[in-house]
This record gives sequence, structure tokens and C-alpha cells, in this order.
Amino acid sequence: MDPDAVAKAFVEHYYSTFDSNRAGLANLYQNGSMLSFEGEKFMGSTSIVAKLTGLPFLQCQHHITTVDCQPSGPAGGMLVFVSGNLQLSGEQHALKFSQMFHLMPTPQGSFYVLNDIFRLNYA
Amino acid sequence: MDPDAVAKAFVEHYYSTFDSNRAGLANLYQNGSMLSFEGEKFMGSTSIVAKLTGLPFLQCQHHITTVDCQPSGPAGGMLVFVSGNLQLSGEQHALKFSQMFHLMPTPQGSFYVLNDIFRLNYA
Repeated sequence: MDPDAVAKAFVEHYYSTFDSNRAGLANLYQNGSMLSFEGEKFMGSTSIVAKLTGLPFLQCQHHITTVDCQPSGPAGGMLVFVSGNLQLSGEQHALKFSQMFHLMPTPQGSFYVLNDIFRLNYA
Repeated sequence: MDPDAVAKAFVEHYYSTFDSNRAGLANLYQNGSMLSFEGEKFMGSTSIVAKLTGLPFLQCQHHITTVDCQPSGPAGGMLVFVSGNLQLSGEQHALKFSQMFHLMPTPQGSFYVLNDIFRLNYA
């Protein structure tokens, strides 16, 4: 399958899960996974998902602007770089963000997130 | 050495080279290196540096806002995520950008850029 199509499908799956059932993101991370969220670091699916589900808003919608993708080396990983808008319910203005994922293949032929770095784009 | 310190040193070296002697960036890429620049893809040090030296401005200054860093897996690589401003000479307003680098170790104990993804943050 075309890597760009895989990246796009992952991104759609990730953000639709984030926006509808944040706890369901646990399946996309593993014990060695890392998240840097606005400079704060988390390791392992449990603490990553605790951070994401604990964010101080209940409903949100991600709108994707760009998706870039590159193979990350001989281990079959893939780097995915996303820019987009994050609309929080009740807020007038959307927040712009940039996020990168390092996806690694699983034995089942799927991918998990090894690295995840998220930053809001402050104006 | 502390990975965050390595990432910061790399970022300072990269952008000061970009701003003072763009052709000197050739030393930081190798044949297998990839650049996605505003969605356009380039492979190999030669075509990457041709793109960067051919950008339609002669002088610029990068100002870094944030640097995030994570190890990228067992091969000893490092992911570096940068946000900042790019000031072009003669332009009133700086451009905001986000960029990620995947650094891989060289046998000489240094790093080269395997993956490079650059995006302007449009307002």
C-alpha cells in the first residue's frame, strides 16, 4: 500500500478516535511509546492516554490541513507530520497545531505510535 | 551526553549554517536523506541542498521558539521537532514554521539528517 495513503488513513483514524472516544487511543500506543505534549513528556500507553483523557476539555474536533510522510529507516517505520486546527467546544477560535508521529509496524501488519510530539502554533 | 542538549546543539548548528552558508548544509545530509519542503519531496544531499540554496531569498534569520526531542528507536536515532520564526531580509513580518528532523548516528560519533519535514504555519 502507498505510504502516503497509509499515513492519511492513520491520521484520520487517530483524530476521529481522539474526537469521539479519547480512551480508545490506548490501542495505538505501547509500553515504549513516548508523547511530548507542549513540552511535557509521557512514556507508555497508560500515562499517555491518562494525559490525553485528562485534558481540560470534553469535546473537540480536529481539522487536518496537511499530512507529510516519509519512511523512517530500515525498521519499516514511518514518520507522519500533521498540521491542523483544533476546535474546542464552546470556544470561538480554533487552535492551530503541529504534530508528528513515528509509526512502527506491528507483527499483525498494523502500526503503533512509537513517538508523538504535539505543539500548539502560538500566534 | 544529554539527548536534549544534543538536539539543541544540532538545531543551533543547523540554522546558523542555514543563515550564514546554506551550501554548508550538504555535510548534514547523506544520499539516503529525505526532505519534504512544503509538501515537495527531495532525496539525497545534492537535491536537498539544491532546493535549499535555490529558495527565492538570499538572506534570512531563523529564530527558534521550541525544541522537542525523543529517541527514535533501537538504531540510536533521535527525533527533533522545532517551531520558530523565519525572518526574510526586506520583509516586515516573520514567517512561522514547524520542522522535524530525524537524526541518525554516524560511525564518527556525530549525526546526519535522515528525515527532514518543513512546513510554514499559515495564519
